[in-house]
Amino acid sequence: MMVRVSDITEHGAPPSTASPPPEPLRPPDPTPAPRRTAGEEARTLVAGATQGVLASLTADGAPWGSVVTYGALGDGAPVMLVSLMAEHTRNLEADARASLVVAEPPNDDNPLDRGRVTLAGRTVRPAGAARASARAAHLAAMPSAELYVDFEDFRLFVLEVERVRWVGGYGRMESVDAASYAAAAADPVAPHADGAVAHLNEDHADALLAMAVALAGFTDASAARCERADRYGLELVVETPRGTARPRVGFAAPVAAPAGLRAACVELTRRARAG
Amino acid sequence: MMVRVSDITEHGAPPSTASPPPEPLRPPDPTPAPRRTAGEEARTLVAGATQGVLASLTADGAPWGSVVTYGALGDGAPVMLVSLMAEHTRNLEADARASLVVAEPPNDDNPLDRGRVTLAGRTVRPAGAARASARAAHLAAMPSAELYVDFEDFRLFVLEVERVRWVGGYGRMESVDAASYAAAAADPVAPHADGAVAHLNEDHADALLAMAVALAGFTDASAARCERADRYGLELVVETPRGTARPRVGFAAPVAAPAGLRAACVELTRRARAG
Repeated sequence: MMVRVSDITEHGAPPSTASPPPEPLRPPDPTPAPRRTAGEEARTLVAGATQGVLASLTADGAPWGSVVTYGALGDGAPVMLVSLMAEHTRNLEADARASLVVAEPPNDDNPLDRGRVTLAGRTVRPAGAARASARAAHLAAMPSAELYVDFEDFRLFVLEVERVRWVGGYGRMESVDAASYAAAAADPVAPHADGAVAHLNEDHADALLAMAVALAGFTDASAARCERADRYGLELVVETPRGTARPRVGFAAPVAAPAGLRAACVELTRRARAG
Repeated sequence: MMVRVSDITEHGAPPSTASPPPEPLRPPDPTPAPRRTAGEEARTLVAGATQGVLASLTADGAPWGSVVTYGALGDGAPVMLVSLMAEHTRNLEADARASLVVAEPPNDDNPLDRGRVTLAGRTVRPAGAARASARAAHLAAMPSAELYVDFEDFRLFVLEVERVRWVGGYGRMESVDAASYAAAAADPVAPHADGAVAHLNEDHADALLAMAVALAGFTDASAARCERADRYGLELVVETPRGTARPRVGFAAPVAAPAGLRAACVELTRRARAG
């Protein structure tokens, strides 16, 4: 088998031997169904966890990784609470450069097909009003830290993000500049998306098939399931006699709050059945 | 509330306000029930995962964290397979210093009360027989990498471990030298321990109570459950009118293979009921 380098993604996707996916047989519904931007993906990963791996520098300039907990400020800058007894704290006090990796938990089937992000920059010890904001951001994510956040042998550090590298899985990766990262929003529906997807697949296969036919334009679809949900819409896996397609179908408007996902799916179903 | 610095562990344990746990009322069974050494804990964590976070150095010497997959050689040295297109690969080619963090997945209740380990050292690109061993070790952990392991734009790197820092959760942490890490064995029962613990708690509460009374010496125990299992024995949580104790009870001999855990628990039960 001949495989070109360009067939392989940065993180080692197996080369595809499949034929290209089928196209819709009629024009899809015009409602936009954008994917989240890389900045939104990065912010969503950071908002969805409270633990990451910090890379810092030892006294001789070697890279040192260690687990830290964090909360995030409104601009997505992580706030870590660390003990003076920990090696990473000595490292940050001597050299402020650091990066934080936040990753989705690996799945057994394919650990590389998961989202992760590296935030790189410099750490600062916030003071005054900045310390109060940082303290609140950390405690919002880690309420149990209330017990020791104010001890004199603990330090709050804010990572001022200068560079962001997001990897969404095989073949999806992008660098994000600091301003785009700070301006992007975490997806409000992310915490509930897995549950919504499971519910759609278990109880609403007929609605998903209607979406595949009427909204995605696969009029020969025999079955459809939902693979992912985000604030902009659903990703479907559609079976047709011509092969498997993975179209997106867009919500009438981006969902602005966690509770809005259900109503957006109901509207999508109604539109599909009317279509 | 007065709290001394010494009450707090490196990674921020809430200070304990509880009274000391009760002692056994009669001498426990003399069978040794050692805890795993820090080296064994480190090897067990490394053997139990295929993904970690690598800390490497950028061209200007800043720390860069990124997710990598790995397998491990017989001495516990991780073998990573990385693409020439990835930033960490350029980093390692320019400066071999690196560390790898492997962590248990966080639990929601208490993300810091989980095991993690940092392996720090230098990466080398293995050649000849060393490459064949490294390749086999990586593929044993990541069989799907077979598809691209031999492509010319992928690199195998072995992390030659010079220093190990293990953290087992609140208040359990230890540095391990390279020789002790290399000589230690991963716990063979670790992959099955959670299932065994669940089974003991669901179906064998009476056997656990017998162990607490007859083997751990808590003759006033009213209930017992198992919190952890390892190759050396079980960790129990024993309720008594005097408070909650957490004794260990030891297997007749360390379990040498995954399948041996069940027989060791049966022997422990038999010994408890005879006691």
